[in-house]
Order: sequence, then structure tokens, then C-alpha cells
Amino acid sequence: MNIDMIEAAADRLRGHARRTPLLSSPFLDEIAGRRVLVKPECLQHTGSFKYRGGYAAISALAPDVRARGVLAYSSGNHAQGVALAARQHGIPAVIIMPEDAPALKIANTRALGAEVVLYDRAGQQTREALGEELKASRGLTLIRPYDEPQVVAGQGTCGLEIAEQAREAGVEQADVLVCCGGGGLTSGIALALEARAPGLRARPVEPEEFDDTARSLVSGRIERNARMSGGLCDAILTPSPGDLTFPVMQRLCGPGLTVSDDEALTAMAQAFLRLKLVAEPGGAVALAAALYRADALEGDAVICTISGGNVDPAVFAQGLKMLEGG
Amino acid sequence: MNIDMIEAAADRLRGHARRTPLLSSPFLDEIAGRRVLVKPECLQHTGSFKYRGGYAAISALAPDVRARGVLAYSSGNHAQGVALAARQHGIPAVIIMPEDAPALKIANTRALGAEVVLYDRAGQQTREALGEELKASRGLTLIRPYDEPQVVAGQGTCGLEIAEQAREAGVEQADVLVCCGGGGLTSGIALALEARAPGLRARPVEPEEFDDTARSLVSGRIERNARMSGGLCDAILTPSPGDLTFPVMQRLCGPGLTVSDDEALTAMAQAFLRLKLVAEPGGAVALAAALYRADALEGDAVICTISGGNVDPAVFAQGLKMLEGG
Repeated sequence: MNIDMIEAAADRLRGHARRTPLLSSPFLDEIAGRRVLVKPECLQHTGSFKYRGGYAAISALAPDVRARGVLAYSSGNHAQGVALAARQHGIPAVIIMPEDAPALKIANTRALGAEVVLYDRAGQQTREALGEELKASRGLTLIRPYDEPQVVAGQGTCGLEIAEQAREAGVEQADVLVCCGGGGLTSGIALALEARAPGLRARPVEPEEFDDTARSLVSGRIERNARMSGGLCDAILTPSPGDLTFPVMQRLCGPGLTVSDDEALTAMAQAFLRLKLVAEPGGAVALAAALYRADALEGDAVICTISGGNVDPAVFAQGLKMLEGG
Repeated sequence: MNIDMIEAAADRLRGHARRTPLLSSPFLDEIAGRRVLVKPECLQHTGSFKYRGGYAAISALAPDVRARGVLAYSSGNHAQGVALAARQHGIPAVIIMPEDAPALKIANTRALGAEVVLYDRAGQQTREALGEELKASRGLTLIRPYDEPQVVAGQGTCGLEIAEQAREAGVEQADVLVCCGGGGLTSGIALALEARAPGLRARPVEPEEFDDTARSLVSGRIERNARMSGGLCDAILTPSPGDLTFPVMQRLCGPGLTVSDDEALTAMAQAFLRLKLVAEPGGAVALAAALYRADALEGDAVICTISGGNVDPAVFAQGLKMLEGG
């Protein structure tokens, strides 16, 4: 994975992915004690950065391979990104989801034209076995959520935009805080910044108790989370950083940061109040770190991603309560 | 007021106002039965289009006049737009607000550097008398919220962007639905479209029971609302269309549309769900018309503004309830 792949992905995404703006608010600057610039990927198609990677991967396939269709395991943002990108290419997408996934997510993925295949988490057949069967019988290509070079290249296009937009905003030196699950967005942005804005340094941000990447960066080897459920930041929970993404993060990223669920919710509420954006809790962890980890940051400006906005209305309402009396 | 003034305002606003994107969602297209393109001015500085007009008016003042400061009557979006624009020019802003205005709005306006002068709605001194006193004693210039040519020119810059962005999106013929209070945004956009995208036609959208502009367009003279309070769309309630804005709307706009408070709330919820945007109810009336007045619209695409996003968290939570079971 390298800058040429990211530039090539950007060419393929032109006219398809949105160039999201770089936003700010004097009120956020005041909380953070420095200038805060926000890259809202919640405004990307399907409500998260995942569309970039999905489109980049599908558009990179050989036409005859692509025509047979693609396959993804996901109950969340990756599913929707792959579904829309597949529809735009006029090819089938099969998404394997647990049968207890939220009804709205299943409905959204179907509405984007994908075929949803449900599996029983407690059943005998694993999702991987089901996927292998579908690949074999229908010739589908698996689009992995992060450990896939073209997906990382697609997410890296977000980093190209940050490099340009930071320069336009007069920011040459800053930490770039990235909401981090498997590290696709973080490593993609890190590669783009290395080549196009070397004064900007990517740093992963994770929820407390799911800080596999932060710990991996400290220990120098891939560490895993003790558990894979619980907490509000489900959109960015993964077992561990990826085999492809971790070495990139190890080479290029600054130390990881963690925030609590309450801090993520409060940052979500601040994005509502000051930026008029809908963030999901997992998508707000980088903003939370920008606002509430001032001592761990360097420089007079900080850039942070909002990685997605696909939040349950009840969870969002819970965040709004954080504003009462505040 | 003409296109040259709007272009000149756009020059002055360059590097200050945000160029807001033009967003869309296949889910909204499906509800509307046509392509829906959304211009989210909730992403503008201070959370509404009002910053454009405030900045345009202040930047057009003669330097010696401007240096003495500006004055506005407002408890809402205009106050914040004028306050920020004044601070960016390094000049004083005095905002006259009723003493029972929401504490958050008073605090926000002060935080943007304005001096807030409170008056008693039930008291002997009208706000106009108070304003005259301040103008005389301190040489302040009044920035009217809509009946002011430079304010209309500033709002018109939103129309220039719509003209360009609609062309890029391949839309040459469409209704452009505009959330309408006094008509500053509607008339500004109408003037810009007349010159730069004559296939696009501006149409005002108002809350039911506050449809002064729609009725004025029918009768051919300025009609007034029976009352000035009640309803959720407070951000766009005005007594009547303006003396300057009405003739422009009469010459250029298509028929007005109205929506109910429930439709505005539901559109606000759809903007949350499908666009990841925070709209205020008054700022969502044009989207509501795009979604729920299909029979009153022409063409296979519709463009609508979201005029602002400064909504009380409790009202927003009320809108989110519209999504339950839906």
C-alpha cells in the first residue's frame, strides 16, 4: 500500500465519493484550548467513510471478476458502503449479517440493493463457512472491511483531502485524530499524510476497554481486545488491528488515545450543538479526544475525523441529555 | 438589488462563508418520488444562512461607519450571524434581545463577542426606542434581518452556489424550495437563479398558519400573519414579507407551499437519519415540502434549503420520536 494506490483510488472515486468539508466552531476551540478542525465523514454517502473503501475496492476489480458480484461480512457501516458501491457498478452484493442485527440496518442494506443473508450466531455454521460456500457457488469476491489494500487506499483518500484542506486552513503541524477500529481509516490517512502533509501526524483514538490498537502500538505486536461487545461505540469495535494495517500504523502513527463512553456521548452532543452534525458514538471518539485530552496533544491546532453518523435515535437522545443544564 | 450586488457580496465572503455542499440520499429520493438535492445551510458558520447576510452587510459599510459598530434586533439566528461577522471585522456588535429569550441563545450571542442588551417585552420602552437611543448615542448602524439590500445580496450567495452545484449534478430544471420568513433568503436566491440558472425557480415554504408570503403571492399585496408566536418553526416566523423582498419574490418566485409542524418535525428526523444533519424545525420546512408535497412540485428533481440547525435538544428529541416504529 502506498500513495500511488491512494491517488489512483482518488481518481476512481472522483464524481462518486463526496469531498467532505473541514468544519470548525469557536465554541469547540474554546473547550479544547486550541483550534479544532473536524472532517465529517458522517456526511459521506451511506453515512460513513466506509463507502470510500467499498467503492475503491469494487472499482479496482477486473471487470469479469467484478461482474460476478461481491460479498461482505458486516452488520454496520461497511455493509452499507459496499452495498451502495456495488449498486453503482451494477453488480450483485451479498451481505452476511447475524440474524439478530438491528432491523433498521438490515432494511437499509436491502434498500441499497444488497442481498442480505442472515446467519445464526449460536448456530453450527460460522459466517466464514457460509461465506466460503457463497464464494464457491457464485464466484463472489470478498471485500474485507480493513485488511484489504484497495480498501485502505480508498480510506486514504480522506487523508488526501485532509492534507489539502489543512493547508488551505493554514495548518501545517498538527495531530490528526482518527476513530480507529481495525485501522483501515487510520492507516490510509497516515499513508496519505506521510506523502502529502508530513507535518501532520495520524493518531488512533479508541474507546476505553477496546484499546487494542493503542496497546499494540506500545507493545510492538498485535494485541487483542478482551471482549467484543458492550459499550456504545460498536461501530468501531474490532478484535485487533489488522495484519496489513498494523505495520503501517506502527511506522507512521503517534501514540493512541482512549476516551470513555460518556466522553464519546458528550462529544456527540457537542457535534450536534456546535457543528449541526449527527455523529455515532464510535464516530465521535476522535472529537472527544480533541476536546478532552488536551494535555496529550501537541501544537496549537488539532484535526479530527467524525467517522460515521449511523446512530440509533434512542442513543442519540441519550447524548442530547448530556446538554441539559450544561 | 441585482446580480452584481450578489457577485460582489460573494467576493467579500470568499474565505469567510462556507461553501456548503449539495447533499442527497437515495432514501429521500424514494420518499419524494424524485431526486432530492439538499443545500444544508445549517453547516454555515453560526448554524444558519444568516451569517452570509450579516457578513455581507457589515463588509459593505464604509470603514469609518463600520468602526463605530453595528446593532441588530434578534433573539435568534440573525443575532449570531451578525455577532460573528462583527467580531471578524474587529468592531462592536450590540444585539437587542427580549429578556425572556432562551438562556442558551443569549449565552451564545455573548460568547461570539456581542454586547447583549435585554428589554422587557411588557415594559414601557419598545425595542425600537431602545435601538434609536443606542444608534444616536454610539453611532451604531442597524443591520436589518431581511429588508436590507446588502443582507439580501449576502443570502443570494447561497443561490450562486446552488446554481453551480445543480449544474454539476446535472439538474437544469427544478423547483428550489426555500425556508421563508421575511424573504431575505428566498429573494436573494431567486435573484441569483434568475441570472445564473434560469431553469431553476425559487419557491417559498412556510409553516401552516404562518403563510404570509404564500398568501401575499396569491393576493398580490403584502399580507400579515394573524399571530407571531406558537408553533415549532419560530426561526422563520416574521409578521409579513418585507417591503424590499416581496416585489422580488412576486416577480420571480413560483407559488408558495406550506407544511404542518408535524411534517417539519418528520423532515427534521429524516435529515437526522438520512443526511446526518441537524436541522431546526423551521429550517426543515423546505425539505418537508420536497418530501410530502410531491403533487405540488414539477420536474424529476427538487432542490431544497435547510436554512438552519439551531434547535433546542428537547425539540430535537421530540422529532427523533417520529422515527420510532417507522
